[in-house]
Amino acid sequence: MENSVLELQYAMDTFYFLVCGALVMWMAAGFAMLEAGLVRSKNTTEILTKNVALFAIACTMYLVCGYELMYGGGYFLQGIVTDGAESMEGLKDAVLAEFAGEDANAYSNASDFFFQVVFVATAMSIVSGAVAERMKLWAFLAFAVVMTGLIYPIEGGWTWGGNSVFGLFELSYSDYAGSGIVHMAGAAAALAGVLVLGPRAGKYGKNGEINAIPGANLPLAALGTFILWMGWFGFNGGSTLSLDSVSAANEVAVVFLNTNAAASGGLIAALIVARFMFGKADLTMALNGALAGLVAITAEPADPTPLLATIIGMIGGVIVVFSIIALDKLKIDDPVGAISVHGVVGIWGVLAVLLSDSDATFVGQVVGMLTIFVWVFATSFVVWLALKAIMGIRVSEEEEFDGVDISECGMEAYPEFTGK
Amino acid sequence: MENSVLELQYAMDTFYFLVCGALVMWMAAGFAMLEAGLVRSKNTTEILTKNVALFAIACTMYLVCGYELMYGGGYFLQGIVTDGAESMEGLKDAVLAEFAGEDANAYSNASDFFFQVVFVATAMSIVSGAVAERMKLWAFLAFAVVMTGLIYPIEGGWTWGGNSVFGLFELSYSDYAGSGIVHMAGAAAALAGVLVLGPRAGKYGKNGEINAIPGANLPLAALGTFILWMGWFGFNGGSTLSLDSVSAANEVAVVFLNTNAAASGGLIAALIVARFMFGKADLTMALNGALAGLVAITAEPADPTPLLATIIGMIGGVIVVFSIIALDKLKIDDPVGAISVHGVVGIWGVLAVLLSDSDATFVGQVVGMLTIFVWVFATSFVVWLALKAIMGIRVSEEEEFDGVDISECGMEAYPEFTGK
Amino acid sequence: MENSVLELQYAMDTFYFLVCGALVMWMAAGFAMLEAGLVRSKNTTEILTKNVALFAIACTMYLVCGYELMYGGGYFLQGIVTDGAESMEGLKDAVLAEFAGEDANAYSNASDFFFQVVFVATAMSIVSGAVAERMKLWAFLAFAVVMTGLIYPIEGGWTWGGNSVFGLFELSYSDYAGSGIVHMAGAAAALAGVLVLGPRAGKYGKNGEINAIPGANLPLAALGTFILWMGWFGFNGGSTLSLDSVSAANEVAVVFLNTNAAASGGLIAALIVARFMFGKADLTMALNGALAGLVAITAEPADPTPLLATIIGMIGGVIVVFSIIALDKLKIDDPVGAISVHGVVGIWGVLAVLLSDSDATFVGQVVGMLTIFVWVFATSFVVWLALKAIMGIRVSEEEEFDGVDISECGMEAYPEFTGK
Repeated sequence: MENSVLELQYAMDTFYFLVCGALVMWMAAGFAMLEAGLVRSKNTTEILTKNVALFAIACTMYLVCGYELMYGGGYFLQGIVTDGAESMEGLKDAVLAEFAGEDANAYSNASDFFFQVVFVATAMSIVSGAVAERMKLWAFLAFAVVMTGLIYPIEGGWTWGGNSVFGLFELSYSDYAGSGIVHMAGAAAALAGVLVLGPRAGKYGKNGEINAIPGANLPLAALGTFILWMGWFGFNGGSTLSLDSVSAANEVAVVFLNTNAAASGGLIAALIVARFMFGKADLTMALNGALAGLVAITAEPADPTPLLATIIGMIGGVIVVFSIIALDKLKIDDPVGAISVHGVVGIWGVLAVLLSDSDATFVGQVVGMLTIFVWVFATSFVVWLALKAIMGIRVSEEEEFDGVDISECGMEAYPEFTGK
Repeated sequence: MENSVLELQYAMDTFYFLVCGALVMWMAAGFAMLEAGLVRSKNTTEILTKNVALFAIACTMYLVCGYELMYGGGYFLQGIVTDGAESMEGLKDAVLAEFAGEDANAYSNASDFFFQVVFVATAMSIVSGAVAERMKLWAFLAFAVVMTGLIYPIEGGWTWGGNSVFGLFELSYSDYAGSGIVHMAGAAAALAGVLVLGPRAGKYGKNGEINAIPGANLPLAALGTFILWMGWFGFNGGSTLSLDSVSAANEVAVVFLNTNAAASGGLIAALIVARFMFGKADLTMALNGALAGLVAITAEPADPTPLLATIIGMIGGVIVVFSIIALDKLKIDDPVGAISVHGVVGIWGVLAVLLSDSDATFVGQVVGMLTIFVWVFATSFVVWLALKAIMGIRVSEEEEFDGVDISECGMEAYPEFTGK
Repeated sequence: MENSVLELQYAMDTFYFLVCGALVMWMAAGFAMLEAGLVRSKNTTEILTKNVALFAIACTMYLVCGYELMYGGGYFLQGIVTDGAESMEGLKDAVLAEFAGEDANAYSNASDFFFQVVFVATAMSIVSGAVAERMKLWAFLAFAVVMTGLIYPIEGGWTWGGNSVFGLFELSYSDYAGSGIVHMAGAAAALAGVLVLGPRAGKYGKNGEINAIPGANLPLAALGTFILWMGWFGFNGGSTLSLDSVSAANEVAVVFLNTNAAASGGLIAALIVARFMFGKADLTMALNGALAGLVAITAEPADPTPLLATIIGMIGGVIVVFSIIALDKLKIDDPVGAISVHGVVGIWGVLAVLLSDSDATFVGQVVGMLTIFVWVFATSFVVWLALKAIMGIRVSEEEEFDGVDISECGMEAYPEFTGK
């Protein structure tokens, strides 16, 4: 009888992980639609190909070696120990014993892997938008192999995996669902790529003018944002890691509520700031504002009151507008604003933890961020340079002018619409 | 040990609310895609901006004052009482005591707020489609503030909130998930707006002819309908408010099944009726038929047999075709058919309760509906008139001709496709 | 007290079915977007209409007679026995007794129906893509009535329903979530349709050349693939049929993980094979590779290790590329590759069971597949021929040239984009 209750707790936590994981997987579609909407039609097939392929590569590389690097346990080539569900039956007694003893975190290892693997893909998805419209497809995919198989898992191991490096993380770096560990990390890799790659042809004029390059399909961009917003409930809500008690369920519920509140605040703030700066209701800024709100709350979605969560999101929404403008002035060409949304606002998110979590320290947050940034940026930079030397990372000028869809994928995204 | 079971019930009900709430949030994307697909390309950016912004406004206003107005409890500016998940730990004993005593409705307040807040956004989403293609963006957003912060919460308080007005709701008005409380209410606000605003230029000719204005992107409209269909499982299925027993789980399952059956019936009926009236398989009528089926079953999805649910949906599908035609004859210009789908069929849904729920009375249903309609229509009408006086609600003729995307948002939705 | 635990198990299994069912319903949107993206713009409204209508027809026909034919029990016209949720209360004691006795499969009948009904729609969705761009809409819908009301339920009854035909299924045919029962069955019906219908005008030249006919909207195709990928977690994950114990929860988690791994493997393999064959990163092949991986793992997602699941998916991804090329050489014109993805790879999936399930036999798998194929192909062929005789199944040459959107639906999908 007692076992029945423990088994139910186990089943519920496992199901909660799987549902949240499915929502995070759905974010891959969100990034794909967002980026496909914000690039020009001639580069759309290629960005779609990048997005579907990076997701598949992330899932495979994390299975092959990433999970092992991040969490250990001897699961190389397996992700988890299982020769099929049948044999897991044998784990049952051990699992129940563990559960009964600790009253926490007893759920299927496979559900944990499933949840973690979609996070890897999220980190990688951030990169694809920033390098859009001029990078070689296969160079990008080669980078994805290294990023999802090595760079991210090693970094994740230092934080969530508990493999403290230099004792640094005894400084109590606090990052609930990964404003820094996932989002800023992805943005750091993107920034390194953009610096090696350079801006798109025609983006920055000879006399310092910045040319707007409008996205081809704004409904897709809005759809992508809604998908990301929805998926983020799984991203943050699943990071509570447990649902099986009153306090855990309360925490998950607060995380859902705060995540939604921060996104709403970010959207409203960005819409209003853009209105005053540009005189119009700028849809792409509003979308980036919502995403900024989501990134901002990700480092601590459980502790703030809903009103504070709204404000944290609003500040994220303000930051993102100014960051996008500033990066353009620095001639860092990021077609979808990914570095601003995930990187600059990611920093804000990690610092905002200090507003509601008295266990977090300023030093811990800053040192944690710096460690992540330096590692991911430096290793990515080296990998990008190596790829540049080996295979080249930028398409030719003619290919860029004609669009990478033809040169890289051999097919147009909208062959009947653009009158070519 | 007993506590463990109660905690699991609490956790399960909370998770059920959160999953259903995430599905209802997803409906916001459905409305956005449906409306973006049914307007012309020159008005697409603006309708997307309206849809993302109204969702954010609804979530924020409900947090600031709406939830308090609807349900009371002293949660002004908070939505719920919580200074973060930590302190909710303190509520645990009280919660378990309440649960043990009542055996019902013990779940996280935050999950309840999350579920309710997405309903507010749904009601507001109905408005945006009806006033599409000629309304000023900022006037619409100002209306959204009042609608989601005051008009809807006060009305919702009379019904679901239990704040009976004039003792009217002792007449046993029955409306499970809100055919009247949410859908007809949204349509009433939309109707008031359309009457103040007037039809689009060119819609109704001088000689009484009605000009069809085709939507620019039907795949988006179909996608939006599928999203709404999926989200409706959360909308109706979550309104059972409990999952933690055999009878509750059965009821939730029947609600899912009947919701699906009614949507199917509505789609088939509208497709066939349109075939006989217009000679073709009219996709937009089929989509509106599915939505009509969903609205029709929303007032009572738990009691009908699946076959009766199908029939209730079919009648909704027939009604919506004739209603769309009739409104056009009355020169009430509703680009997406929202008033017909949510308002006229919402009335049918509230009356259809009488077919399966012997506790509901004709008088109760009619008086309930009238109360909701008069309140929402009258207050909305006043607010629209006030906005018209203060800031104007209609764009200029030239702006309407050029498309509101340029005048309101400063960017086209499909800059490369329309050959402008 | 003991009842409380049993009730919670019941509630959890029911909720698990409903969540998985909602994900499978979502696959209908995936098929609609995938197919709408891969046809030409002039045939888009019609394929959308087919997809929404077939889903509604499938749900209604399964309610009217399909569920009864497949599982028996006297539920004709009802799908399930219920005159509403109230009366189900009466079933509670019986349900609990059953549960306590068997410790398995105690969940709401309505949730079971909801999960099964969305499978029917999946089988039918496979057909619509293969016959795209030249079939009469109403003939297709008439076929959908027969397929979802009779052909599939009878076949499903032989396998999942346990109504063994000729004692054949005592040969231990094993098909977890339906690589053969659902996917190959749908492909068999599609193949019959394509053979009766013939290829699209202009697809195969007089001198044996094969003309590529590019899809009009690749972002939709990518979106559809992501939707199907996500929905497949429900399709396979729900087919475990139980979640309420450690072993069941482990199995569900492994199914989610393996489903994701196989899709990833299929995508990567198809992308690489297409790269070597065509010299480019072919997005549509990559998408079909992911779907092939999903179909391949569907017959046994619980037993393989994640690495084996990846490999099973990869082999599916390789097969699909060669199959698409081979079918074109045979002049079997399948605009979206559905017969290859669901049929040819479905066969591979059924055989791949032998790699991890020692209870399955080669003879059983082959005889099972042949029985399904012969039944579905033969009955479908007869129905297509009958429809051809009665109402015609192919549009006229002029209608095909102008696009079926105008002739069948009376409206264009993108009236402003294609410059007609």
